[in-house]
Amino acid sequence: MISFESDYTTGAHPKVLERICAANMENLEGYGGDRYCESARDKIRAACGCPQADVYFLVGGTQTNAVVISSMLRPYEGVIAAQTGHVSIHEAGAIEYTGHKVLELPHTDGKIVPQELEKYLEGFYSDRNHEHMVFPGMVYISHPTEYGTLYTRAELKQLHRICSAYEIPLYMDGARLGCGLMSREADLTLPEIARLCDVFYIGGTKMGALCGEAVVFPQNNAPKHFLTLMKRQGALLAKGRLLGIQFDALFTDGLYEKIGRHAVDMAERLKEIIKDAGIEFYLESPTNQQFVILEDDLLEKLKERVAVSFWEKYDETHTVVRFAASWSTTQEDLDELRKILQTIRKS
Amino acid sequence: MISFESDYTTGAHPKVLERICAANMENLEGYGGDRYCESARDKIRAACGCPQADVYFLVGGTQTNAVVISSMLRPYEGVIAAQTGHVSIHEAGAIEYTGHKVLELPHTDGKIVPQELEKYLEGFYSDRNHEHMVFPGMVYISHPTEYGTLYTRAELKQLHRICSAYEIPLYMDGARLGCGLMSREADLTLPEIARLCDVFYIGGTKMGALCGEAVVFPQNNAPKHFLTLMKRQGALLAKGRLLGIQFDALFTDGLYEKIGRHAVDMAERLKEIIKDAGIEFYLESPTNQQFVILEDDLLEKLKERVAVSFWEKYDETHTVVRFAASWSTTQEDLDELRKILQTIRKS
Amino acid sequence: MISFESDYTTGAHPKVLERICAANMENLEGYGGDRYCESARDKIRAACGCPQADVYFLVGGTQTNAVVISSMLRPYEGVIAAQTGHVSIHEAGAIEYTGHKVLELPHTDGKIVPQELEKYLEGFYSDRNHEHMVFPGMVYISHPTEYGTLYTRAELKQLHRICSAYEIPLYMDGARLGCGLMSREADLTLPEIARLCDVFYIGGTKMGALCGEAVVFPQNNAPKHFLTLMKRQGALLAKGRLLGIQFDALFTDGLYEKIGRHAVDMAERLKEIIKDAGIEFYLESPTNQQFVILEDDLLEKLKERVAVSFWEKYDETHTVVRFAASWSTTQEDLDELRKILQTIRKS
Amino acid sequence: MISFESDYTTGAHPKVLERICAANMENLEGYGGDRYCESARDKIRAACGCPQADVYFLVGGTQTNAVVISSMLRPYEGVIAAQTGHVSIHEAGAIEYTGHKVLELPHTDGKIVPQELEKYLEGFYSDRNHEHMVFPGMVYISHPTEYGTLYTRAELKQLHRICSAYEIPLYMDGARLGCGLMSREADLTLPEIARLCDVFYIGGTKMGALCGEAVVFPQNNAPKHFLTLMKRQGALLAKGRLLGIQFDALFTDGLYEKIGRHAVDMAERLKEIIKDAGIEFYLESPTNQQFVILEDDLLEKLKERVAVSFWEKYDETHTVVRFAASWSTTQEDLDELRKILQTIRKS
Repeated sequence: MISFESDYTTGAHPKVLERICAANMENLEGYGGDRYCESARDKIRAACGCPQADVYFLVGGTQTNAVVISSMLRPYEGVIAAQTGHVSIHEAGAIEYTGHKVLELPHTDGKIVPQELEKYLEGFYSDRNHEHMVFPGMVYISHPTEYGTLYTRAELKQLHRICSAYEIPLYMDGARLGCGLMSREADLTLPEIARLCDVFYIGGTKMGALCGEAVVFPQNNAPKHFLTLMKRQGALLAKGRLLGIQFDALFTDGLYEKIGRHAVDMAERLKEIIKDAGIEFYLESPTNQQFVILEDDLLEKLKERVAVSFWEKYDETHTVVRFAASWSTTQEDLDELRKILQTIRKS
Repeated sequence: MISFESDYTTGAHPKVLERICAANMENLEGYGGDRYCESARDKIRAACGCPQADVYFLVGGTQTNAVVISSMLRPYEGVIAAQTGHVSIHEAGAIEYTGHKVLELPHTDGKIVPQELEKYLEGFYSDRNHEHMVFPGMVYISHPTEYGTLYTRAELKQLHRICSAYEIPLYMDGARLGCGLMSREADLTLPEIARLCDVFYIGGTKMGALCGEAVVFPQNNAPKHFLTLMKRQGALLAKGRLLGIQFDALFTDGLYEKIGRHAVDMAERLKEIIKDAGIEFYLESPTNQQFVILEDDLLEKLKERVAVSFWEKYDETHTVVRFAASWSTTQEDLDELRKILQTIRKS
Repeated sequence: MISFESDYTTGAHPKVLERICAANMENLEGYGGDRYCESARDKIRAACGCPQADVYFLVGGTQTNAVVISSMLRPYEGVIAAQTGHVSIHEAGAIEYTGHKVLELPHTDGKIVPQELEKYLEGFYSDRNHEHMVFPGMVYISHPTEYGTLYTRAELKQLHRICSAYEIPLYMDGARLGCGLMSREADLTLPEIARLCDVFYIGGTKMGALCGEAVVFPQNNAPKHFLTLMKRQGALLAKGRLLGIQFDALFTDGLYEKIGRHAVDMAERLKEIIKDAGIEFYLESPTNQQFVILEDDLLEKLKERVAVSFWEKYDETHTVVRFAASWSTTQEDLDELRKILQTIRKS
Repeated sequence: MISFESDYTTGAHPKVLERICAANMENLEGYGGDRYCESARDKIRAACGCPQADVYFLVGGTQTNAVVISSMLRPYEGVIAAQTGHVSIHEAGAIEYTGHKVLELPHTDGKIVPQELEKYLEGFYSDRNHEHMVFPGMVYISHPTEYGTLYTRAELKQLHRICSAYEIPLYMDGARLGCGLMSREADLTLPEIARLCDVFYIGGTKMGALCGEAVVFPQNNAPKHFLTLMKRQGALLAKGRLLGIQFDALFTDGLYEKIGRHAVDMAERLKEIIKDAGIEFYLESPTNQQFVILEDDLLEKLKERVAVSFWEKYDETHTVVRFAASWSTTQEDLDELRKILQTIRKS
């Protein structure tokens, strides 16, 4: 059985694991105060080109979204997100749990269209009843999106301009940021993201770490007592070293980029195999996640030999399925997949 | 200046006020334990045909929705509502404040279409990732809706059937229930509503009271320690008498129905006047709220002499405006409006 | 049966009710935008000697505490209160419901001792683990306290100084403020309170209104979009007029003071009667609430003819009981009580 | 520099780390559905003697407390804890963040005294105003406590009996459970704990794991959709394997007990050294945490060569300090400490 089920089915990249083991016996301060966390923070600041950035390490994506969003919103505000945004549908109401509404906008291939955002904000403030409504207080985007798509530099600049005009922060969920940065169609660098977003997180879990996400406040603009806020929401790890060591490893010798590049390279080859098998894509993704439309019969056969993710029903007889590549995807996996698809197609 | 701005611009119906005054010097127990509250509860039980009902009095509509919804949902659940539902957009995030998501469905004239609901519920449980999503835990409808429209008996039966099948409660927001009951197109009685809904509230504020809403749990199915839950959410009035006396008055000698009938009668005459003035309706409403599409020029002139409510922008040059009738609307108001419209039209 | 059960067993002061009736048919804007609310705000500003104050009307005390406290605390903060504070024990967890801890201090006769407060704050910041603890973010006091006692000017000045030094707001719950202001031992005026507190509320419910509390932010320091915050917490009344008219009446021709003076005058006479009956006081209260220690046998007999409030068990055979006077307490009530106590004592 | 600062300053026990590395390349299902999680659950069930138990893995202690407590309390309830309980003071208000009050009881050496609990519960229900108060809905104890002390079997039985009588769950925070189980004074086994508690967690972070806590619901009594509740509170790890593998290792070949025994053995030797140095104990602890009273001068000197934890100020010139032993404490550390204490004492 080979797996393209997700980018979190295997453990950590060997270099990350090696570093965890190497530091194991060191006595280190808890809660993120250790030297590995400090080193990782410095390396991330350097990679982002913002020496003044505040950097915090949290354990997982949903947790990170909940802590960041709730700590930056004012009580009368909600967060704008695409209807397909992770915070809108796949976090079990974690944002609402913090007391805030997710204000859902229509999406195009998983992205918020700047014009839609601007129209929404104009409409809100021109509504004479808006004091009885949830104020838009932040814009959440994911990059790559939940559909693997990427914002262009022009789009991010427009979102940045609109957010600035309305004085609301722009937040990027970078659960798979490495894949976005290393895509062949990548139009945005880390320093550009740091310049155009008010806060973003660099995903670890789906980029070769055992766990962990690094939140970056580029302008030294973390909410006051952010550590206490993390604790209050159950997001502060006692052995913070586990996160610091991993991000220190990921940001040493370009490992984060290497992992991203490998995943997107594998995904490009995967696309070829899928195309060759005559399978239709649900949409065009330039990153490590590929969404295809499979006949349900075919899917049933495929699932016996290949692990993939159910995404959503397409119609009565078809299903949208996700194939994901990651740091641990191998050429052997791809060769095997090609063979399996050929076999199934024939049968 | 005459007003059709809303059904809460004047005080209380004179009979309600009279009763408040009459009881003023009586020493009465606090927090809803007084004899007026008890009497009002009995009369409401009788009117609903459910002698076993639990009845609680709260102060306002948003508060009532927040307390009822949050106390009936389990923590992993959200409430389904139409996109145009009061809880969806006009309560400043009061439901999300309780930690729960409002799961918004498309609407037809302000109503949830039973088929849409069923499709949504089926889709939810057939989604293999649904454990990572907010479970649908209640259906919220308003009757009359925010657009003045009414559910038919057939529709309510279908909603009831679907909710029963999925074991989730059906909740009716009856802020203007009296107008729904007394509409010429009324297809539902109070006992029918009590039989088909798991919980509903009989609105007071917009039906001739100074304040107050009566929540009815028809099957003796109030959440345990509901009084404590009300207190915890700041919804328990010390001088509960104020609510009990008013509802006792409203449910004496058919006053609640009289108020409803007057409001819809006035609204029917209002419709004639609007039609005669050649103004287009946004939609057909059989209750006390009428939504029309006005040219912005005309609206500007009208506003100098008649108070109405801005509802939403229709297009670049038109606005949707609400005219509301209430217990205090008079024939003189209507005559005056006719004159004003004629004058404005000519100018 | 006569009642000294509480100061909210009767309706509204006749002058308040009269004004509600007089304005009943006026068409007025909703949500506190009407002319009575505006007039009441102006009169309260004048009475407090702070023309720039923000004034908002809410419906009840627990609600007011929840909205004010949660809107002024930052997310990592809790509110300091005496262990006997209303927010600590008698609000069903309404503050915790907003996500914030009540940091309980020991009390002396219901009051926070300034030295205790200072010690607590010093201790907090000298604790090296305080980033893992709830930050003290506000001081809540009630005046009169839950035991009817009053802060002296010197005490309030000290609390103000300490709060200023730690940059946390001082909040006074004035549910019975009128009795505090008109006590024979009153040491604080409304303008002094407005100068020494960052926010306070002037109670209406227990001071002759049907409902309603007026929150005063003396330095124009209401949290941004406070109206939306009220709405979000279910505390915004549609017919805001009900609150505005009542406070306008209370602050016309010194009615608020008259009501306070009457209540404390009645309480002083009540104290004489209690003393004459040889009943022991639980503590010395200079306001309208009197706490006495009754033998349980005596209490049983008393309860047949006089309504009083159970407060707490004193020991195996005694109970602490509260007698409350209010605007509606009469000399006849007092004479009757004297007779009853004499009769019971003899039996 | 040697460290007795805490039991989470080093990484994972080598056997735990070894297993993480060994399984690294396996493709495993996410969110706790993998075979290691399943195996760990089975081993924990066996160790607890309850084959029907529900077992869930969470990341950290504060998070675990927040999820367990909030998911088991009903909305009108709070959790009873000792004033010194971790949930009372050292979790930055994480419980209150979930909307629930921590009802603090006095403690004796960090423990709740059964008689105090019973008195509190009796008092609550005999208070006629208790519907306006937070209902006691759970009892939280830590074992070992925050002061390293242990409940006896007799005490736990009493707590169990009282909780049963009031129908509220008894919850044990076992952050350092292994040290409690292996103490020389241990009076309780894991199966006994599983029989007497309604829910408890077996701590990993402080017992040799990189992170992770295992929540056990012994009677198959996990709240419905607990996985969704975890997700909603940001406590569901994508790579759940990280937790499963570690607990599988900890519960293989008695490793959890070995780690506990080593830590308490080291602590016993530590106690000798402290005693020999003439240092006074703050209290008597039979587990891995030792609390001593140090002169501030001595503390300053000690801190230059030994890392310890500040606990609290004892008086003007003394501080309570914690020494903690763990799986990674060595005889060399102890020898070094003895020497350092001798040197400092002399100087």
